[in-house]
Amino acid sequence: MRFTTHKRVRFQHCDPAGIVFYPQFFYLLHEVQEDFLAGIGFPEHVLIAGGAGLPIVDLKTEFLGMCRNGDELTLTLELTRIGNTSIGMHYEVYGRPTAQGKASPIKLEADAVVVYAEVPSGKPIPIPDGLRAALLPYLQTLDNT
Amino acid sequence: MRFTTHKRVRFQHCDPAGIVFYPQFFYLLHEVQEDFLAGIGFPEHVLIAGGAGLPIVDLKTEFLGMCRNGDELTLTLELTRIGNTSIGMHYEVYGRPTAQGKASPIKLEADAVVVYAEVPSGKPIPIPDGLRAALLPYLQTLDNT
Amino acid sequence: MRFTTHKRVRFQHCDPAGIVFYPQFFYLLHEVQEDFLAGIGFPEHVLIAGGAGLPIVDLKTEFLGMCRNGDELTLTLELTRIGNTSIGMHYEVYGRPTAQGKASPIKLEADAVVVYAEVPSGKPIPIPDGLRAALLPYLQTLDNT
Amino acid sequence: MRFTTHKRVRFQHCDPAGIVFYPQFFYLLHEVQEDFLAGIGFPEHVLIAGGAGLPIVDLKTEFLGMCRNGDELTLTLELTRIGNTSIGMHYEVYGRPTAQGKASPIKLEADAVVVYAEVPSGKPIPIPDGLRAALLPYLQTLDNT
Repeated sequence: MRFTTHKRVRFQHCDPAGIVFYPQFFYLLHEVQEDFLAGIGFPEHVLIAGGAGLPIVDLKTEFLGMCRNGDELTLTLELTRIGNTSIGMHYEVYGRPTAQGKASPIKLEADAVVVYAEVPSGKPIPIPDGLRAALLPYLQTLDNT
Repeated sequence: MRFTTHKRVRFQHCDPAGIVFYPQFFYLLHEVQEDFLAGIGFPEHVLIAGGAGLPIVDLKTEFLGMCRNGDELTLTLELTRIGNTSIGMHYEVYGRPTAQGKASPIKLEADAVVVYAEVPSGKPIPIPDGLRAALLPYLQTLDNT
Repeated sequence: MRFTTHKRVRFQHCDPAGIVFYPQFFYLLHEVQEDFLAGIGFPEHVLIAGGAGLPIVDLKTEFLGMCRNGDELTLTLELTRIGNTSIGMHYEVYGRPTAQGKASPIKLEADAVVVYAEVPSGKPIPIPDGLRAALLPYLQTLDNT
Repeated sequence: MRFTTHKRVRFQHCDPAGIVFYPQFFYLLHEVQEDFLAGIGFPEHVLIAGGAGLPIVDLKTEFLGMCRNGDELTLTLELTRIGNTSIGMHYEVYGRPTAQGKASPIKLEADAVVVYAEVPSGKPIPIPDGLRAALLPYLQTLDNT
């Protein structure tokens, strides 16, 4: 199952060329992660208050299309792996179709690996069973890869 | 040859866990790119004013160690490729040695591909000869790979 | 009439003390301005594409309470003045009541003056009639001051 | 005595109109505060590690001129008041003279009040004597007001 959300490109995301300045995409992806975790019942701020965070260790991003101020984006998240302490996350960002009947153009694809870890030491700890069960429905299966 | 610069982790880079929030690293890497381009005589704001920018198309990052408020960082940039319209950039970020005689711990390694492109269309254009000549000394050679 | 919207404090807004780092409040206030302008039929990105922006010239802010990661905020905007080229904006930010029956605690109060201006020169120009008419219902009256 | 520092407007500070997006000025002012505190021997990250911070409670800003990507800025800080628990700070930001013999144009003037406070409770505490003594030379006197 894919977690899907929608966000609008804001003035604050855009650079003097009028397009999203690339680090800003990672704020948007982190918002998707926050929305996802809140949606499955484990809000990130509650995890952190409980002494655990999800620091990132690896990130691969392809920037496939420019996004401009005011663009409506669709962002999806699927999990590629749920390990003992780490989670693989696959993000896709789509713009609006440029004409009726056209497909939504892909703007960005990213693969992140985050680690469930103690805050503030950063020491990886096993993903608790409750969180693992809530993550599982979003694990990519062979069919939709 | 490596381009080397130094930056301090600022309050504004850090998150509630007291460490650099990962998108902030990309602001630092972009500052390195700006400092590099200014250092070789092609300040980015002059390029942009002249109608050309360097949008990113691909980025791979390994986050290898946490950085905290006040940390002194050493950041290096080397070019992995100078194509017709694209440039491969390799970044490394180091912290301070934790004790005398110890090596500087690596905190982050990143490989970016940027494209020399018209602003605002984003259409790739050949890297001009002057810029190419200024980039060349920073191209990674087999010896230091 | 007050324009009212709701936003959640995000991880990205918070600093090593776990509270909103103050410049981040201004991103939130600018989001309110964007949401307001879109709501009255004059999306900011359309104004800018048409050659006009709303640069700020004066800003007074009182920070009245700390906001933390995950806090649900209510943000209101009312206009204090609609001049020939300038607009006075009054913002209030409220948190959630700490107990049933309690009032929402105020977190921030801000007064901004923005100018309707040519982009990119920044030269003030008269507010067009259509925009003025759409702004008018949000002008503070004596009764609710 | 005025604390003076220099910063360059970066790509990341600028918006689609090519000018500094106003919340970014507050990152620059906070950098000035950090540089100042480090310069007088009380680095902010050391204060915070010791359980004290300087949250802002009041801020008045006049935006007097637009700043663009690549601009070299001079930023000054003077103290307007050193109270029992609070400090008044006066910032000025100047651009480069537009021609030889001309004065540096002022771009921004800001007055902030910060409070010496426990982290994370935010409870104001008296400014310690050592910090007070280090601040004192930067207190505005009648002569230079």
